[in-house]
Amino acid sequence: MNEFDLLRKIRERVARPDDRVLVAAGDDAAVVRPAGSVSVTSVDIFVEGVHFRLVTTSLSDLGHKCLAASLSDIAAMGATGGEAYLAVGLPDHLGERETLELAEGAAALAAEHGVTICGGDLTRADELFVAVTVVGYAEAADRLVTRGGARAGDLVGVTGALGGSGAGLILLERKPPGIDIQAGERLLDRHLRPRPLLEAGRALAAAGVSAMLDVSDGVASDLERLCEQSGVGVEVQLDALPVDEGVAEVAAAAGVDPLELAAGAGEDYELLFTAPPAARDAVERAGRDSGSPVTWIGRVSDGGEPVPRLLDETGRSRELAGWDHLRRGREPKEPPGRASR
Amino acid sequence: MNEFDLLRKIRERVARPDDRVLVAAGDDAAVVRPAGSVSVTSVDIFVEGVHFRLVTTSLSDLGHKCLAASLSDIAAMGATGGEAYLAVGLPDHLGERETLELAEGAAALAAEHGVTICGGDLTRADELFVAVTVVGYAEAADRLVTRGGARAGDLVGVTGALGGSGAGLILLERKPPGIDIQAGERLLDRHLRPRPLLEAGRALAAAGVSAMLDVSDGVASDLERLCEQSGVGVEVQLDALPVDEGVAEVAAAAGVDPLELAAGAGEDYELLFTAPPAARDAVERAGRDSGSPVTWIGRVSDGGEPVPRLLDETGRSRELAGWDHLRRGREPKEPPGRASR
Repeated sequence: MNEFDLLRKIRERVARPDDRVLVAAGDDAAVVRPAGSVSVTSVDIFVEGVHFRLVTTSLSDLGHKCLAASLSDIAAMGATGGEAYLAVGLPDHLGERETLELAEGAAALAAEHGVTICGGDLTRADELFVAVTVVGYAEAADRLVTRGGARAGDLVGVTGALGGSGAGLILLERKPPGIDIQAGERLLDRHLRPRPLLEAGRALAAAGVSAMLDVSDGVASDLERLCEQSGVGVEVQLDALPVDEGVAEVAAAAGVDPLELAAGAGEDYELLFTAPPAARDAVERAGRDSGSPVTWIGRVSDGGEPVPRLLDETGRSRELAGWDHLRRGREPKEPPGRASR
Repeated sequence: MNEFDLLRKIRERVARPDDRVLVAAGDDAAVVRPAGSVSVTSVDIFVEGVHFRLVTTSLSDLGHKCLAASLSDIAAMGATGGEAYLAVGLPDHLGERETLELAEGAAALAAEHGVTICGGDLTRADELFVAVTVVGYAEAADRLVTRGGARAGDLVGVTGALGGSGAGLILLERKPPGIDIQAGERLLDRHLRPRPLLEAGRALAAAGVSAMLDVSDGVASDLERLCEQSGVGVEVQLDALPVDEGVAEVAAAAGVDPLELAAGAGEDYELLFTAPPAARDAVERAGRDSGSPVTWIGRVSDGGEPVPRLLDETGRSRELAGWDHLRRGREPKEPPGRASR
């Protein structure tokens, strides 16, 4: 396998015509005409044994998921997807076929969202890793939503349903008996082929959400980031969390609390946000119209520590651990099945 | 070590005020106002044991070098540096101190070139790797230079001097006796702390070079890329190559052909380009004025295969292997010392 030949084959597979991309892969750098007055850029790395395991994912799904997780960051800013760059470290046991599968998995998702893969890098490595850079655009900076805009009295909302990805991971790893095959397939898909909510992100931004991020590490942990950046506390009702279909069954079969999956497992790539009460109706409409219905789960506190409080039905605060990629599954409080995330 | 705490400490160290960077690290994505009508983006990965070895580089030098090699791609387009994003896979034996050293090494170089590090990622990995994304800008697309513009009759030129990095690597790896300490220090610096030639790249582009790339894999291999992209052949006189000071001594002490180092070792990060004869004087002036004097080393052929021919003083064609990151030092024709590049 030759680096330059393989890079050329990848280019052939991911190339899409695009008026804005003046020079795509194959030169020192890609040349692009920005599709807005501000650009939005995110970089994510995915490492075998930390973020995924090759025994439970196909290379094509892996390419899809790495790009989806990265585009989810663009969605969480309320931006439009633009370009992506894929850099891959390849262990010896993976050859040309697997590398092209990975590229094609990412390219198919990119095409769905009007995103052009226009560069990257390839090298040998001891373990498989994928570094994804995604660039999005907005017409103006004030169209974007950061994590820092939540204010006292704002409502806390989330799109779609939670815990599906975590339940899918349990199905992959532990294969608990008695789970309906169709329900199981859907949960596996939630885990292996998440959807970046680019349309919902833009719609929510336009509807006036005050702060937003995507659910990657789990609502419990992601809310910590929002509180920290906004300098506010939030109170969330755990029994208000929209738990994904089939999660309760998988949790029961595996002997796990479904709330751990909904609030702690992460990788649902739903959008978590705050909105002033006046924007409530517009936000609900934006969610419905973009296919990502909104559930209100709590409220930004008036004063207090800038941390989230997760309240159970009796009003007691509960701890639900998130996932820290530097600890790699060695934490005692680690959620079930996360060693292979 | 906690991922979020460490990311915060890195942000504190790399942060620079910048009017264009509206949201830097700490949110889902960085928000930037592009500094030109076209953006130029390059992604590079650097893996321990393939691109570097921790026993022969400090973490600070590694941060410098990874960013320098990436910015060199921006220089080779004739663009101005804008932002950089650093994603790092950390093995267990490296902790907070080493990670901050790496970030500071990159941040110091970024500051020298007016580049803002405004994002990245951090995760555990079995081996150390660094993924660098760099973004540059130009006022218009026609100010940029690709690898595809070389035409029959153009002159082939290169900035500065070659082989210094390869000689530095030999000094690091083999410690041949009898090398003058000061000369040795300079060669080590060429290898460990290369300079991205952003000013020279812009000056050469403005002076009318027709194709350009940076010397990363070695002139022999890099010329193959240029020929392929431009669809032309080139003839280069090996005895015209500007061999860096001290390279001959190191090559002699190590029993290596200095031309192998000058043409095959790579990582000099000089600029290799073609220019129409009419631009000759302007190009020479641009090189001189930007501190990177130009040497003419050959000519673009009129017809023939789109490959480079490296001619020795008798006019015979010579083969000098480049470096392929997928083969990782297993090639029989591998240049000396490159197993640890």
